[in-house]
Amino acid sequence: VAKFEYSWQWAYQDKFAKAGLTALLGSGFDPGVTSVFAMWLKKHKLDTIRTLDILDCNGGDHGQAFATNFNPEINIREVTAPARHWENGDWIETPALTVRQGFDFEAVGPKNMYLMYHEELESLAKFIPEMERARFWMTFGDAYITHLTVLQNVGMTRIDPVMYEGKEVIPLQFLKAVLPEPASLGATTRGKTNIGDIATGHKDGVEKTYYIFNICDHEDAFAETGNQAISYTTGVPAMIGAALLVQGVWGGAGVFNIEQLDPDPFMAMLNTQGLPWQVRELDRPLDF
Amino acid sequence: VAKFEYSWQWAYQDKFAKAGLTALLGSGFDPGVTSVFAMWLKKHKLDTIRTLDILDCNGGDHGQAFATNFNPEINIREVTAPARHWENGDWIETPALTVRQGFDFEAVGPKNMYLMYHEELESLAKFIPEMERARFWMTFGDAYITHLTVLQNVGMTRIDPVMYEGKEVIPLQFLKAVLPEPASLGATTRGKTNIGDIATGHKDGVEKTYYIFNICDHEDAFAETGNQAISYTTGVPAMIGAALLVQGVWGGAGVFNIEQLDPDPFMAMLNTQGLPWQVRELDRPLDF
Repeated sequence: VAKFEYSWQWAYQDKFAKAGLTALLGSGFDPGVTSVFAMWLKKHKLDTIRTLDILDCNGGDHGQAFATNFNPEINIREVTAPARHWENGDWIETPALTVRQGFDFEAVGPKNMYLMYHEELESLAKFIPEMERARFWMTFGDAYITHLTVLQNVGMTRIDPVMYEGKEVIPLQFLKAVLPEPASLGATTRGKTNIGDIATGHKDGVEKTYYIFNICDHEDAFAETGNQAISYTTGVPAMIGAALLVQGVWGGAGVFNIEQLDPDPFMAMLNTQGLPWQVRELDRPLDF
Repeated sequence: VAKFEYSWQWAYQDKFAKAGLTALLGSGFDPGVTSVFAMWLKKHKLDTIRTLDILDCNGGDHGQAFATNFNPEINIREVTAPARHWENGDWIETPALTVRQGFDFEAVGPKNMYLMYHEELESLAKFIPEMERARFWMTFGDAYITHLTVLQNVGMTRIDPVMYEGKEVIPLQFLKAVLPEPASLGATTRGKTNIGDIATGHKDGVEKTYYIFNICDHEDAFAETGNQAISYTTGVPAMIGAALLVQGVWGGAGVFNIEQLDPDPFMAMLNTQGLPWQVRELDRPLDF
């Protein structure tokens, strides 16, 4: 069973330190790149980060009535969990999929995104202690929300076992067996992802807001690797994290979240390894 | 596996005839009462039936986001099957849930009903051979349709097995295990059912249209029997059919659909056993 929290991994700190080994946590896109983005902004553009919003937009269309872009069990558990964001030193919980915000994503267009919990909020709140607010947003189309609501209503997203012909079956795991295999969607997925961070803070006493993001094209990713952009944006950062450890650029004895390590070599490799990023200064902080 | 056709039961005709036994087919509400209604109209009000429409309205609300009022496997298979109606000697098939018609049901109010196939059409087309058209309609709310559409989209209404942890699991049967047990809905169901027939035909050379129907109240049914109106309207006609056989009022050697037997004693018992019916002459045939 997947655990969307770091506590059980952080508990290995002493064992790794004692053994002289390095553990790198969260080296995908989100968590992963989104945390590195935040730390790069803090290193180069801002002295402090007051608010951070992570915006995860998948503008891809796989042509199926309903399918998840990665492991349905993880995806559906994330989306149906209560939303949680960090605000003034506390976690604020709101019911799943109730806070909705429109946003116009470059290269994708306007989408509705929903406040969610995502595990990098836990480590970012720890490693950027001055943050007043940190939120995570993910886009979903209306049809996706309708499908998910129905699956919740009928009990198919439950993770407790149901007795079926004398055998325990977990509804969400059976649903996974019925839904399309995410890997099978690669060949038909069109469109782009746009995932990034918007951070507001001070630099030399002046408030500034920056938007840093990557755009990845599903068809280009599939042409290069045989997998669409969700796999690409997850796999390439994992490779970069591993490469930096192997090369000795990153290291140390203990358990490290990716935001504890120098962002610069990671950011450089993103640009050379197929996930180029852009940074823009915005006129003002987000008004939502 | 349920079979929505009579052929395999009709095939027992010779065996039952030879053994001197009576088999009574379709003694519920629909099939059952709806066929008796048609034959009573043909016996008393019409010389011939040109068109017959069976209108099945459940105006009950069980207070759940989604649940079926009887065996979910049967209900969902019926509803997701292509619609089929009898017209000019042929079966006309249309995709499931695509032909929708509003209708104002007495004691319930206006509802959307959908063209469906229902097994009494098979026997009525045989035993009322002059019929030009016979159709079956059932009401569903928009939320029910949305839930069903989603369950179809994700594959949860499939009746072919899916491999799950080395075991074959039929999605629709597993869905049944997850959905509320229909019997559990009785205590919370409010509202009424209104199920009946509209028949147009000639009497003494003049065209006439009759509407014959029963209204059953979910709460009254539950107060009397501990089951809501869906169970009540199914169980009472089964009891009446059995009673007429046991009393020797109905009988014969062989396999009989309920419409082959005299409707009068059955219609009389409906009135005394909790399912009183009403018949009205309408001004004109249905305009849909």
